[in-house]
Amino acid sequence: MAILVVGSVAYDTVETPYGRAERVLGGSASFFSVAASFFSPVNLVGVVGDDFGEEQLAAFRGRPIDLEGLERMAGRTFHWQGKYSQNLGSRDTVCTDLNVFEFFQPKIPARYRGSEVVFLGNIDPVLQLQVLEQVERPRVVACDTMNFWIHGKPAELRKTLERVQILLLNDEEARELSGEWNLVRAAAAIRAMGPRTLVVKKGEHGVLMFGEGGSFAAPALPLEAVFDPTGAGDTFAGGFVGYLAGTGGEGEAALRRAVIMGSTMASFCVEAFSLDRLLSLTRPEIDERYRLFAKLTSFEGL
Amino acid sequence: MAILVVGSVAYDTVETPYGRAERVLGGSASFFSVAASFFSPVNLVGVVGDDFGEEQLAAFRGRPIDLEGLERMAGRTFHWQGKYSQNLGSRDTVCTDLNVFEFFQPKIPARYRGSEVVFLGNIDPVLQLQVLEQVERPRVVACDTMNFWIHGKPAELRKTLERVQILLLNDEEARELSGEWNLVRAAAAIRAMGPRTLVVKKGEHGVLMFGEGGSFAAPALPLEAVFDPTGAGDTFAGGFVGYLAGTGGEGEAALRRAVIMGSTMASFCVEAFSLDRLLSLTRPEIDERYRLFAKLTSFEGL
Repeated sequence: MAILVVGSVAYDTVETPYGRAERVLGGSASFFSVAASFFSPVNLVGVVGDDFGEEQLAAFRGRPIDLEGLERMAGRTFHWQGKYSQNLGSRDTVCTDLNVFEFFQPKIPARYRGSEVVFLGNIDPVLQLQVLEQVERPRVVACDTMNFWIHGKPAELRKTLERVQILLLNDEEARELSGEWNLVRAAAAIRAMGPRTLVVKKGEHGVLMFGEGGSFAAPALPLEAVFDPTGAGDTFAGGFVGYLAGTGGEGEAALRRAVIMGSTMASFCVEAFSLDRLLSLTRPEIDERYRLFAKLTSFEGL
Repeated sequence: MAILVVGSVAYDTVETPYGRAERVLGGSASFFSVAASFFSPVNLVGVVGDDFGEEQLAAFRGRPIDLEGLERMAGRTFHWQGKYSQNLGSRDTVCTDLNVFEFFQPKIPARYRGSEVVFLGNIDPVLQLQVLEQVERPRVVACDTMNFWIHGKPAELRKTLERVQILLLNDEEARELSGEWNLVRAAAAIRAMGPRTLVVKKGEHGVLMFGEGGSFAAPALPLEAVFDPTGAGDTFAGGFVGYLAGTGGEGEAALRRAVIMGSTMASFCVEAFSLDRLLSLTRPEIDERYRLFAKLTSFEGL
């Protein structure tokens, strides 16, 4: 079943210890859509400026990604520039030019309104709610957010969360949203806000999922060469939600496989700038790496 | 088979957000020995002062922990005082009074010299080597160290590491010892120094093991209440080495089970001050928690 994704489509300028990429394709909806498209059709809702050309669109072409919802507005495309620390452990935002994204009002094409799976990328929670009001009866709503909204629009975010089944956050965001340092308590507090499943992304330390089936811990793949972490979280979400939508599963076993698939996709994302590695990826490569996770984590009973 | 452990036996004064414990039993060899004793007999080599009483020794009594090697010296026992941050994520050492530990020269009783499994707790690498020179032909030598020795006695540490099969470090120490930030590269560099297996302890983020059988990732158990992290690393080592010695296994499957057993024991350690939780622990509780790790990490293939 197709996934409706709403989020940013952007130009990124990224500096890492390994090099610099200038005005390459980025944005949460871009990483999400390409990752998810390996498993499920995707309906993309976002906005770009008139400087967003066919070269960038090429990333979406030839994949089951519907672009009717990708609005083109007069002006320039959202541009983010960041610089990573020597060990890639932290990054500074050099500049954020919202450009046309500042005026983004998600309009969901009629064809998308029956979407059963919705992914609300990290945008203003007011807009996230507007999206939900335009879709009919989604079976699964997954959502991302960030500190900016947790602090800036807490009441609005709470309203959105009441309608979210799966929330994806990083550990710091989970702590800030809940006011609890301990992640087990943070998860309980957040799940009481609405989402029955909370997926806490911990970067190189993997993922913790808290839900009705208990807790699930997945490591990140230990990689010798992490080149650029930009988009890893959105790529995780794409693999996770894409896999769920593609298989139609909802139970604990499906959620766990989806976490591993998200981790698998994220492990590819960080191997190159922008979406470069995702764009060269094949399904056999994905399945092989999924199996690496099984090898990485398996142990016998007593 | 019995494990020979050499390390500190100490008084700890610990302050956490949850309370304060004054001059309670601590030290690497104490945590290690009690944890390991659930799986294997332990021969303890260490030193205490004449202020170390029967009350403290009681922790070791009634367990297969041989105390012939616990030397009693005129003077006061090693005392460490630390204070944890609000979230337990970091700690400051308030004071370290080495006392008799400053003059510690490990003397291995004749009965211990045939030990097949040796654990070198975090002490001066020169002393660690002296221990190895007093044992006959150990099958497995496991070792811990810390930044203080990595920077202070690098050449001596290298000499010790040439004779170590399993090295246990935290992630920061692995980075400093190898000069590599990336843990995969750090592991390769450290394994080239001697240890065929490297176990990297990442606290709440679990453990990564690098060895001949590839990489293994184990999470820490997500706990609602972490009370006092003191000794968790030594308790992990006790569970890990104890389980290996007790089962006599050496292969990849045994090493992986040992990592989970170490994680299991560490998860109990942090639930109370000092060795309190370890001392009330039963084998059925241990086995039940081991099975929790399987539940926490298992997922199906594609």
